[in-house]
Amino acid sequence: MVADGPVPPPGAAGAAPAYREAVLGPLFAAQKGHNGHYRAIDRAHAVMLAETGILPRPEARRLLAGLDAIETTLQLDGRSDAGGFEDLFFLREDALRGAVGADLAGRLHTGRSRNDIEATIFRMQLKARLSAAIAMTSDLAGTVLRLARREAATLILAYTHGQPAQPTTYGHYLAAFAEVLLRDLARLDRALDDLDACPMGAAAITTTGFPISRERVATLLGFARVQENSYGCIAAVDQLAAAYSALAILFLNIGRLTQDLAFWTSFEVGQARAPDGFVQISSIMPQKRNPLAVEHLRTMASLGGGHCATVLHALHNTPFADMVDAEGPTQSAGHAAFDMAARVMPLLTAFLGGMTINADRVRANTDASCATMTEVADSLVRLEGISFREAHEIGSLLARRLVADGSGIAGLGGPLVAAVFMEVIGRAPRLGPDELARLAAAEHGIAVRERTGGPAPASLAASLDALGSALALRQDSLARRAQSAAHAAGSLDAAAAAV
Amino acid sequence: MVADGPVPPPGAAGAAPAYREAVLGPLFAAQKGHNGHYRAIDRAHAVMLAETGILPRPEARRLLAGLDAIETTLQLDGRSDAGGFEDLFFLREDALRGAVGADLAGRLHTGRSRNDIEATIFRMQLKARLSAAIAMTSDLAGTVLRLARREAATLILAYTHGQPAQPTTYGHYLAAFAEVLLRDLARLDRALDDLDACPMGAAAITTTGFPISRERVATLLGFARVQENSYGCIAAVDQLAAAYSALAILFLNIGRLTQDLAFWTSFEVGQARAPDGFVQISSIMPQKRNPLAVEHLRTMASLGGGHCATVLHALHNTPFADMVDAEGPTQSAGHAAFDMAARVMPLLTAFLGGMTINADRVRANTDASCATMTEVADSLVRLEGISFREAHEIGSLLARRLVADGSGIAGLGGPLVAAVFMEVIGRAPRLGPDELARLAAAEHGIAVRERTGGPAPASLAASLDALGSALALRQDSLARRAQSAAHAAGSLDAAAAAV
Amino acid sequence: MVADGPVPPPGAAGAAPAYREAVLGPLFAAQKGHNGHYRAIDRAHAVMLAETGILPRPEARRLLAGLDAIETTLQLDGRSDAGGFEDLFFLREDALRGAVGADLAGRLHTGRSRNDIEATIFRMQLKARLSAAIAMTSDLAGTVLRLARREAATLILAYTHGQPAQPTTYGHYLAAFAEVLLRDLARLDRALDDLDACPMGAAAITTTGFPISRERVATLLGFARVQENSYGCIAAVDQLAAAYSALAILFLNIGRLTQDLAFWTSFEVGQARAPDGFVQISSIMPQKRNPLAVEHLRTMASLGGGHCATVLHALHNTPFADMVDAEGPTQSAGHAAFDMAARVMPLLTAFLGGMTINADRVRANTDASCATMTEVADSLVRLEGISFREAHEIGSLLARRLVADGSGIAGLGGPLVAAVFMEVIGRAPRLGPDELARLAAAEHGIAVRERTGGPAPASLAASLDALGSALALRQDSLARRAQSAAHAAGSLDAAAAAV
Amino acid sequence: MVADGPVPPPGAAGAAPAYREAVLGPLFAAQKGHNGHYRAIDRAHAVMLAETGILPRPEARRLLAGLDAIETTLQLDGRSDAGGFEDLFFLREDALRGAVGADLAGRLHTGRSRNDIEATIFRMQLKARLSAAIAMTSDLAGTVLRLARREAATLILAYTHGQPAQPTTYGHYLAAFAEVLLRDLARLDRALDDLDACPMGAAAITTTGFPISRERVATLLGFARVQENSYGCIAAVDQLAAAYSALAILFLNIGRLTQDLAFWTSFEVGQARAPDGFVQISSIMPQKRNPLAVEHLRTMASLGGGHCATVLHALHNTPFADMVDAEGPTQSAGHAAFDMAARVMPLLTAFLGGMTINADRVRANTDASCATMTEVADSLVRLEGISFREAHEIGSLLARRLVADGSGIAGLGGPLVAAVFMEVIGRAPRLGPDELARLAAAEHGIAVRERTGGPAPASLAASLDALGSALALRQDSLARRAQSAAHAAGSLDAAAAAV
Repeated sequence: MVADGPVPPPGAAGAAPAYREAVLGPLFAAQKGHNGHYRAIDRAHAVMLAETGILPRPEARRLLAGLDAIETTLQLDGRSDAGGFEDLFFLREDALRGAVGADLAGRLHTGRSRNDIEATIFRMQLKARLSAAIAMTSDLAGTVLRLARREAATLILAYTHGQPAQPTTYGHYLAAFAEVLLRDLARLDRALDDLDACPMGAAAITTTGFPISRERVATLLGFARVQENSYGCIAAVDQLAAAYSALAILFLNIGRLTQDLAFWTSFEVGQARAPDGFVQISSIMPQKRNPLAVEHLRTMASLGGGHCATVLHALHNTPFADMVDAEGPTQSAGHAAFDMAARVMPLLTAFLGGMTINADRVRANTDASCATMTEVADSLVRLEGISFREAHEIGSLLARRLVADGSGIAGLGGPLVAAVFMEVIGRAPRLGPDELARLAAAEHGIAVRERTGGPAPASLAASLDALGSALALRQDSLARRAQSAAHAAGSLDAAAAAV
Repeated sequence: MVADGPVPPPGAAGAAPAYREAVLGPLFAAQKGHNGHYRAIDRAHAVMLAETGILPRPEARRLLAGLDAIETTLQLDGRSDAGGFEDLFFLREDALRGAVGADLAGRLHTGRSRNDIEATIFRMQLKARLSAAIAMTSDLAGTVLRLARREAATLILAYTHGQPAQPTTYGHYLAAFAEVLLRDLARLDRALDDLDACPMGAAAITTTGFPISRERVATLLGFARVQENSYGCIAAVDQLAAAYSALAILFLNIGRLTQDLAFWTSFEVGQARAPDGFVQISSIMPQKRNPLAVEHLRTMASLGGGHCATVLHALHNTPFADMVDAEGPTQSAGHAAFDMAARVMPLLTAFLGGMTINADRVRANTDASCATMTEVADSLVRLEGISFREAHEIGSLLARRLVADGSGIAGLGGPLVAAVFMEVIGRAPRLGPDELARLAAAEHGIAVRERTGGPAPASLAASLDALGSALALRQDSLARRAQSAAHAAGSLDAAAAAV
Repeated sequence: MVADGPVPPPGAAGAAPAYREAVLGPLFAAQKGHNGHYRAIDRAHAVMLAETGILPRPEARRLLAGLDAIETTLQLDGRSDAGGFEDLFFLREDALRGAVGADLAGRLHTGRSRNDIEATIFRMQLKARLSAAIAMTSDLAGTVLRLARREAATLILAYTHGQPAQPTTYGHYLAAFAEVLLRDLARLDRALDDLDACPMGAAAITTTGFPISRERVATLLGFARVQENSYGCIAAVDQLAAAYSALAILFLNIGRLTQDLAFWTSFEVGQARAPDGFVQISSIMPQKRNPLAVEHLRTMASLGGGHCATVLHALHNTPFADMVDAEGPTQSAGHAAFDMAARVMPLLTAFLGGMTINADRVRANTDASCATMTEVADSLVRLEGISFREAHEIGSLLARRLVADGSGIAGLGGPLVAAVFMEVIGRAPRLGPDELARLAAAEHGIAVRERTGGPAPASLAASLDALGSALALRQDSLARRAQSAAHAAGSLDAAAAAV
Repeated sequence: MVADGPVPPPGAAGAAPAYREAVLGPLFAAQKGHNGHYRAIDRAHAVMLAETGILPRPEARRLLAGLDAIETTLQLDGRSDAGGFEDLFFLREDALRGAVGADLAGRLHTGRSRNDIEATIFRMQLKARLSAAIAMTSDLAGTVLRLARREAATLILAYTHGQPAQPTTYGHYLAAFAEVLLRDLARLDRALDDLDACPMGAAAITTTGFPISRERVATLLGFARVQENSYGCIAAVDQLAAAYSALAILFLNIGRLTQDLAFWTSFEVGQARAPDGFVQISSIMPQKRNPLAVEHLRTMASLGGGHCATVLHALHNTPFADMVDAEGPTQSAGHAAFDMAARVMPLLTAFLGGMTINADRVRANTDASCATMTEVADSLVRLEGISFREAHEIGSLLARRLVADGSGIAGLGGPLVAAVFMEVIGRAPRLGPDELARLAAAEHGIAVRERTGGPAPASLAASLDALGSALALRQDSLARRAQSAAHAAGSLDAAAAAV
């Protein structure tokens, strides 16, 4: 923060009050929580400088000891700013100067820059956030699959265009959502893979003339690989954008599910019942039982999606270069999306865990709406030997009249069928009322839908097995990542000790 | 939070842990900061109940005393949740029950509901936020106008499509931005006007059978009027959306200004110099002088715009009805936009206050780019009696050659003019080199642009006077609002005392 | 399209094929539809040049005659590009050269530039689009008000948080939406006012040295006033952004209404019936009656909102300067939003015009959900002399039990009331079953809600009168605008004839 | 379009005019272009019905012949609507009835529904669009890599925070962008993979009781696999959202590149020169050479991004169910994004192909800004044996003074170095002016940056080789997809012939 050049220890001494309040203060507040990442980078870089011979080992040892020492002296908790310094980076450097002297402290900065350090820290933060979101999504998917198995035979009424369509099972519906969540997991996982590349060694933007090992630093920091092109390390934002895009789709999917939950738990539909612990009352309407958790889920999913979009907005029409727009303030704004995910995912998991299907209402709605008429018509084709067109004409006439007179599908047991059959085909049906009732039962329609991805017991069981295996693979990959992160931390300690 | 009906004092006792953590906790944290609004509404409603005779005055007096008493007993500061209660509303009611007994506490709720109370509180919050944003925008506009007067004659080079276009004055440029800010102020002001309508008395959604005076409550709470249709009071969100839309346009405008500031302060352009207190250095590039404040302004304006869009996103595809999507979580998310405005506006005001124009660089860029050639060609029409087409053909040929050979506009003093003139017109020009130099001077081009809204001294002075008057009117209206808010608070105290 | 300077008649001759295909072709296609605006500007400018004496009247007459002549020779209909020219502007200039010679054609460009011409054209386009949208919104509001009067006494069940809340009337609901539409109209009108300022005379960006009259051109083109600061004329985009922001809020409001329509017309709720002409069937589900128009309305409102946001997105992080980002391609993209409005508004107007309320279902849902219990409890306060708290405790107990045992509000006629009353108050109620039934009738609850903005007949009638007057004022203003546009066109003809 | 049931041939006869104009007309216009997909689905389904024995082979043969016949009778080109029918589906069915009789035509619909047909068609459309976008992106990446090889040694000045940072090569910069494009390709490819799953056989939403083979239809239509869960086939939108999210990131990346191109081609910076065929002039500013193609690219990238966001917006807060919001109108709106890509990608490819670096300006800007001072300081550490801190202090003092007095890096040849060295170190430097000049040369800084991903010749060559291989793999995959699509078309023909 010096007018024409930065010779004196750089600091915020000269910063305008307005700049300190609007920029440096909030920046420091966010950086404080990530001091551990700064420390890991300092240590990994020092180890590498020693291993490559850029820094003599005795000096490296003093540096590493100094880095240990300042952890106790820095005392970030109480601080609201970096004092006379621009940010945590310079505050740490000053502390290190105090611990090991200015010259040695300065040498830690050999072959690196704040640019690659911060790019790396943003990655480390985002990797951790994304891993946590993946774990929560995996938990939700696990619960959904568990429920799908339990509710494999529980009838529900499926809606298309907001109107009763056909019966299916709750397990079949949940399996559909589990498929979506598994694709969400795959997308989040790919986004995490893309982020798992270390920018360290890009230095300001063109690497350095010092013979550093970028690969070694990447390994010590638990990255899968080096992010190659150094200009891109500092300038590219597509991996950041991709992470928030993937998260936004998860929010979108959850928001759509909540719209079904809202409809199902409405008083008139009543297909599902919100669990008691997720319901609120009215302050003046005594009859009220508001499943507010559903609306909160929808709202939070929307807000989470908005936070993701905010990150992408901040990147829009900025240069393909090192720019504040992709840095601290934007990263912090993005974290709000993950904070929202950390509220949404457990809430949805718990809500679904407690929600129940009201079998009586499902049956009543299915019957009243004649939602099994598709299967009745299809059966007429097979059992009465009439054409598809005739069968569906009969189905339409029946449905129209049964809905209109309020008798619903039960009306198939009455004289109407014979009359309509005669009207369309010119003869009485061979099937009797009992047989028709069997064909019109929701259970029958489910049982015959033995197609790939259908709701019949065997079809659904096969789907659930496949989904279970797919989820297990995701969970393995999650566990492997956690292990490898732990391993990297251990390696760093060991390498530091070995210097 | 009770299964089938809310008979016992409603509370969070039965709330699921996941619901408490994801919903009730964050909700209470946000509500705490607005306890003053709850209190004002309770008092205004109690006063109205007394004045209309719905509540006997002695009981109203006891209620008002109870409301005073609980202010000291509530102790919100340390609380992280509403204890056994859903939210602050029920926590306050419980405290009031402790102070005045359950029956009298219950009667305060005559003719109102949490719905209209919260709708009113959201308005009060937003009115305060919007007023503060208007005040900050007004301060910025005041600074811009003051600078425009000071820099009325300071030359700058104006760019179109990113290329040197014509000289103008910095004052003229700032006046253009002041016009934008005045339109921003008008838009924000209209949004505030639209919000200045009180929902109290809408009760749950259809008003009440009790003979309340909605107008009286509105007045006591400092609203300009009642929001009429009670269904709309609870269900409509357009005024909320309009407020954030207006704010988003302010952020858009500021973001665009910062793009100019970034370009002007770039090393190669150098038309403006960022003040020292707003500049940062590089950790490894010794020559660096980064005007980071400009990028921070751009980033924060983007994030602020993103926060505004998040509010609109949350409202999208929700019912025209009372819904969580427009309530607490969304209101809080929106406040982040105002928080950002509270960082952006003072920072920009201070930055512009310190930024200086580099006259040498302006002159050099203007001359090298032949940016005064439009005026030279226009002058040839008037002084050489040649046609517009011929004059512009001469201008083009001259500009092309002078830019190509690097001599810039100074080259007009050389033999090229005569040659080109001869080439196009077939005779030598009457104007000599000195006269051409005078016509090619940026000052000349400014001086002759005496059109409405132009940069000539008199034109600009007239514009600045008009803008100054317009701003003064805005500031008066701001002051009147502040006075009337203060007056309403006083009236409420007086009316409470009079009960 | 010339390398180092534009001496020869500027054209697309040198344009790269990729540039022609991606840019110039689509640009010309959009410009063709606005040739009338180009012509009006040319004529108004020529008239002003004559009136101010910048151009001798005989030459102005020849120019005006030439402008008339090229209307028949230009033949834009069949053209897919501007031939050897960049765009319509240069194509027109070339035609004019053919008609009146190069020198006189060139003089038409005295004191103006493509910059101010295009800025003016974009305004003229947007003013026309916005006026049309205002007219359609006004039609919708008129229909909504007419229906509100007709349905002032038609009961519906109002929902909060997706659950039955209280009865109100369809007229009351429609009045709420009419209020929203009137605020939409006010916002669109203000946006139109802001756009009603003419940029002509700003020339490239700093006005001109020629003594033009900007005010005269503005008047001849039907603008209310000159847009003052010339830099702002070319660089500011806030009025454009404000127009699309206002339109986006209209789409948001319509989308929310459609969510209610979707819920109301669902099979299970059935509160409303979609008119036959707006319903589609299923290809295989015989029982289906899908109110697809509602979903189409929602989808189109979303897409319209997205188109509006696209315009704002294109403006984000561009300079405060003349830039393509606010020009042709973005203007065309924005017109897609108005195209969508032109589909949405008539469709919604027609749909609402045909939609009917199903009184039986309203009654059944209201009774089953005990949605009149708020009023029953409030009545107990007034008629039984018990406290508000006691009354609501009774209401809650009753509602919980009546909903659970399926008897609904009709159960008030049974022995339960006495039992609950005794349980809470310790005595039997004074009110008998008949009296309770009267209090529990939806009509009673409506009748007593005589508050400002409430659904009681007198309250609603007063609201509807006020809304009708407000709409009439809007329609007057719309008519005045149309008249003044016609007047301007006439003035231009007269002034041209007078030259 | 029948009130209570669809018995008569379903049609638009009863559709309200407003519905026809706003919905059915635009829908049909969009469907017309995809008749080929409808035909392929009809044929593949008929083949499968025959192969599974659901339909006797003779009847299947008649059906297939009928499908061939209606291709000549349908005459879609001139039609502006589906006549008396809702949409193309019913129009085709009617034509087929004409060709093969109502009963047989009806049997084609055995085991399928408009729901799965349309879901499949939307996939087929999007797969084709995405494949084309991938091909264009691949072309751009190929051009960028080719240019990167050609310009591997061409110096440019790299900027951070908008200020001169360090020299690098244009090849290094382009390689960074190629890396981004390869990640874009990977993201688009994954999105395409996710979409490569066929919904056919999901029927309305629960599959069918007929023993269809979903796998066979998927293969005949060129899908990689069946989309499993039938509810998800109709209800899930995440794959659609993911495709547009991936495309939006491509637009974001291109928009950021254009910001660099705009800055580089600005008059004052001049690092790059826009090719002549992509430049436009001003109508009144003779000196102008506007690289408008860059602004058009930026604008179109913004609009493309906006179109993508519009699709996601339309999906927001809709149910997890079959809904119009994900269907025709939204699919068409999304295609606008691909249309934009088809303008942006070739334009950018051609522009970059013609753009040249201005070596003189690069050198001048680099020297004037002392942008090689990082390397000078680093070299002092290695060659003068001074500490990192001292070297950077010297660098800062030198840079500050050399920039301030205008001598730039050439000033290193003067007496200043000795003075500053003495001031900081207390002795004269060992390096002489020539040696310092060598260290300060941009070429030197490039040559020593032999790190992974750095600009030194060997490093860059290795990066370019790796990028070339990665691109070749992408292109192989693209070719394989094209082959397999052709193969599927052939298989369908063969299978139809074999029936």
